[in-house]
Amino acid sequence: MKVIGSFVSPYVRKVLACMHLKGLSYEIDPITPFFGNDEFRRLSPLSRIPVLIDGDFCTSDSSVICAYLDDAFPDPPLLPADPKDRARARWLEEFADTRLGDLFIWSLFYQRVVRPLVWGEPGDEQRIAKTLNEDAPAALDYLEGELPESGWLFRDFGLADIAIASFFRNAAYAGFEPDADRWPRVAAFVQRALAHDAFASTLPFEDIQRSVDIKGRRQALLDAGAPLTAKTLGTPVPRKGMMRL
Amino acid sequence: MKVIGSFVSPYVRKVLACMHLKGLSYEIDPITPFFGNDEFRRLSPLSRIPVLIDGDFCTSDSSVICAYLDDAFPDPPLLPADPKDRARARWLEEFADTRLGDLFIWSLFYQRVVRPLVWGEPGDEQRIAKTLNEDAPAALDYLEGELPESGWLFRDFGLADIAIASFFRNAAYAGFEPDADRWPRVAAFVQRALAHDAFASTLPFEDIQRSVDIKGRRQALLDAGAPLTAKTLGTPVPRKGMMRL
Repeated sequence: MKVIGSFVSPYVRKVLACMHLKGLSYEIDPITPFFGNDEFRRLSPLSRIPVLIDGDFCTSDSSVICAYLDDAFPDPPLLPADPKDRARARWLEEFADTRLGDLFIWSLFYQRVVRPLVWGEPGDEQRIAKTLNEDAPAALDYLEGELPESGWLFRDFGLADIAIASFFRNAAYAGFEPDADRWPRVAAFVQRALAHDAFASTLPFEDIQRSVDIKGRRQALLDAGAPLTAKTLGTPVPRKGMMRL
Repeated sequence: MKVIGSFVSPYVRKVLACMHLKGLSYEIDPITPFFGNDEFRRLSPLSRIPVLIDGDFCTSDSSVICAYLDDAFPDPPLLPADPKDRARARWLEEFADTRLGDLFIWSLFYQRVVRPLVWGEPGDEQRIAKTLNEDAPAALDYLEGELPESGWLFRDFGLADIAIASFFRNAAYAGFEPDADRWPRVAAFVQRALAHDAFASTLPFEDIQRSVDIKGRRQALLDAGAPLTAKTLGTPVPRKGMMRL
């Protein structure tokens, strides 16, 4: 299977962690976020990464991809067995993808990292301040009441754990980590989850993605052993709004 | 089971149509969209309708609710059996919930109906024009290539058909219907799907929701035979941004 998407995207990281958990091997085309072209738009009509290509089958949206992986490769399952537990897991996935995405990606990572480094413009300081002072604390208060004191949300490490933890890595890239005095369960859970091999195994590639210039990046990833595929998209060009992280 | 949400919300309509398809009876608390309070926020942390309450279990987000219904009450299924077909159905559901939601709800229905009638302010005419001239046609071009010439997306009428068609009813409330000369498959599919009993059965309640003043609405719905539950939320008050339609 091929995955199109950047190692630093929380949605890509989520899908790769699920594939790791299932023991599925993949090749990745590590395109730069916010670069795109018409071929990408055809593969991903909502301009989202990751895109999964499995033979002649292709889909996008991380939740759709993870559900597909669980249908096509059921063992080990990404969701618990009980219908109500499954609904709670899917709800927490949705909360992460939507709310943590708004906060950690669009209000912090995008403002503090992407706008200065990719677009050469300042981030929205007012939005950053409101996120740090009001919105992120409210989301963490909610998670503090949902996350377990030890272990995982449902017996085995799975989709809900992965979806939530993935966003905290981008939050850390943007300088935000949960205060362990104020949110002890969140802080411990995030640390525990991100140390899991499903996340730890791709961390070296994230470091390269973040530190190596775009021209030398592909070679540096290959040198580090990243499972790269041949380019799938021709030559994408930077286009604001072309691609969701 | 209880459902909290308005009959005119595309996300509520989608869940009620799925329950109808499965022969599940429900009671509904037909709260007014964009009214809310702290109790609602507790039940629906992303401030979304519908909310589903099944005994001591409660969840929100229409996609999570529909997946729960399919897990807990598998017959008849809302999704096709093949993993790739299931992924395509979920993808089309996501396209509808996200893209058609942006276009038909936030850029048309909200601007043309909700802002003038609920908030007493004019809609964003520039946004409406861009939607009608560019964005809605692009989405309909895409759907024209996905929808079947006759029948349903996957053998039986199911979640993907329901999710897509539901948004077109709100588009029609905002004065937009697909041009049958330009998008013959879309126009015929929408007409066919909205005529299905899963949608047709709640249309009289939508008419009341749209035409009867908020004070007389509950009684009018009861008189028309709507399965109302006792109020679940105390007295919600209007709050901009409190609730997603």
